[in-house]
Amino acid sequence: MASIGSTMMLGREAKSLATLRIKSKPFPPPSPPDVSLLQANVRAPSMKGSQTTSNTSVEKQLKLLDPRDDMVADSFFLGKVEKDSRIFSQNFTIRSYDMGPNHTATVETLMNLLQETALNHLRNMGLLKEGLGSTPEMSARNLIWVLSKVHVAVDHYPTWSDEVGVETWIIPSRRNSLAIEWIICDSWTGQTLTRASSMFVMMNKETRKLSEWPEAVKREIEHQYIDRPPLLDKDNSRLPKLDHTKMEYVRTGLTPRWNDLDINQHVNNVKYVAALLESVPISFLESHELSAFTVEYRRECAMDDVVQSLTSFCHETIDQCFHLLRSECGHEVARGRTQWRPKQEKL
Amino acid sequence: MASIGSTMMLGREAKSLATLRIKSKPFPPPSPPDVSLLQANVRAPSMKGSQTTSNTSVEKQLKLLDPRDDMVADSFFLGKVEKDSRIFSQNFTIRSYDMGPNHTATVETLMNLLQETALNHLRNMGLLKEGLGSTPEMSARNLIWVLSKVHVAVDHYPTWSDEVGVETWIIPSRRNSLAIEWIICDSWTGQTLTRASSMFVMMNKETRKLSEWPEAVKREIEHQYIDRPPLLDKDNSRLPKLDHTKMEYVRTGLTPRWNDLDINQHVNNVKYVAALLESVPISFLESHELSAFTVEYRRECAMDDVVQSLTSFCHETIDQCFHLLRSECGHEVARGRTQWRPKQEKL
Repeated sequence: MASIGSTMMLGREAKSLATLRIKSKPFPPPSPPDVSLLQANVRAPSMKGSQTTSNTSVEKQLKLLDPRDDMVADSFFLGKVEKDSRIFSQNFTIRSYDMGPNHTATVETLMNLLQETALNHLRNMGLLKEGLGSTPEMSARNLIWVLSKVHVAVDHYPTWSDEVGVETWIIPSRRNSLAIEWIICDSWTGQTLTRASSMFVMMNKETRKLSEWPEAVKREIEHQYIDRPPLLDKDNSRLPKLDHTKMEYVRTGLTPRWNDLDINQHVNNVKYVAALLESVPISFLESHELSAFTVEYRRECAMDDVVQSLTSFCHETIDQCFHLLRSECGHEVARGRTQWRPKQEKL
Repeated sequence: MASIGSTMMLGREAKSLATLRIKSKPFPPPSPPDVSLLQANVRAPSMKGSQTTSNTSVEKQLKLLDPRDDMVADSFFLGKVEKDSRIFSQNFTIRSYDMGPNHTATVETLMNLLQETALNHLRNMGLLKEGLGSTPEMSARNLIWVLSKVHVAVDHYPTWSDEVGVETWIIPSRRNSLAIEWIICDSWTGQTLTRASSMFVMMNKETRKLSEWPEAVKREIEHQYIDRPPLLDKDNSRLPKLDHTKMEYVRTGLTPRWNDLDINQHVNNVKYVAALLESVPISFLESHELSAFTVEYRRECAMDDVVQSLTSFCHETIDQCFHLLRSECGHEVARGRTQWRPKQEKL
């Protein structure tokens, strides 16, 4: 169901899961390796404040670049590879239309930036040559990547004209899954804005069944792994199964718009997050901002699907919600958990 | 109703028209005037093909820049002012999520680029100092800009990683209106991709009534005019009034999403175009692409509005449609006219 750029998703019910089809285009040559290897994971000293990271598992300091350093070589910000070629980096300026009602970039914008860098990273590695995001060994076996889970923690939202740098890399993961991580930082202060991780699994394009990783594919991928601790101390257990009859807030009759579709005519994974949030009460959205969320993708959503968005607040804490996206015919499309903070507590 | 970055719209029924409130932020200094004055309006010789412009009213050749020329001075592409400081220019790279099901940037993306450059132009002129997009003389009189009409012609859609340059300027217009024009070109070939123009009028922020232009405001603005012929040979007459009972295709129950709202909690003008197109049959969207459209904005749309999108094909030609957006309580929200071409006829 979920689509990244084009389409990636996990489905246990996977009849219509989509492939990752990306327009193949030569990636511009990386800039000369004139920059330091970035050591991400800890918020750098910030001119904007003296916040400290909540992720205590990491010890190294994020050394951020002055983006002007690379300007000549990296003229259009299509991204560059740092000295450690396994880390891919790309800079963005937040545009006016990236902003939402909170006067900041929306969650959709942040996820779009993650998507853009991940796709360019894949392209830079030569994995998008055939437009499928698959390695040659995967293509030979008709295997594709599907996105199964994404976890995002937003410490601070950028706003119009802010310049942000996004870095992405792959970490070793449990058997038969690929873990991609991202960090978004303020390009000028080094402040960590967002940390994110996602999990991809492999699926046979024809049978739509999940696949074990062939050894030949492992050999293609494993040299890209970076042995870093995970950016997020996340709970790796599955989100709890939600009973749609007991959810507190329901919004029915949601249908994809034509422009929600990507180049494969499938709803992009970013749109699922927006759909999950459609059932959050407006009064809560007006007073709170999303600080973290986890989404598990279950089923593809196409143009003619009609879905329901359901939300319940956690009984233990008002700032946590559970969400369910289900088709009107009863199939689970996605489930999610969100964490919120009052807007006045913005960092 | 319609919002640009924040909110601009025309309403004859203007009770809830919104203000233009833009976050004020110093604009980076323009790059040194080391580039030629651009003479836009005619498609430049293209490496991609030998198309000729359909706009025969213009004689000068567009001389496009090699975007690398200005890279050092204009590091983050927040835009720059050419030798003629009345022309504002900004470069963009099309991102993966700017694309839609046609494998190209969507119409929404193109309109977003227009909005971004227009806002940065205003900011560069010092007109966004108070976050209202108003000149000092307008602020003193509680006057704001509202968008009344937009006209866009798309000759060619860019796609992922394409680099485009957007230029914008103000031309003299009929009494009591401000005419902004844009041209989007392929940054590397000079090919004209899109031409656009829009019309703004002035409104009293409190009474919500349209206003004549005070002489003091005219004096503030008129030195920004560029005496160029209009980019588009458009029909300046109002779009015909549409009878909602006779429209062929109707989609009801459309509601804004949280992230359709801008920083003023109003639906952005770009979203109206998407909403107008919601009632176009999918089979037609799959076989055709939009080549031109005109939208007249009538009424603001807020989060709790429920609207209907209605479309009828022109009886004279299958490739032209009329569109109506109306609230379920009967108010006209916007009307539009679109021109289409079969996808196989892509330039």
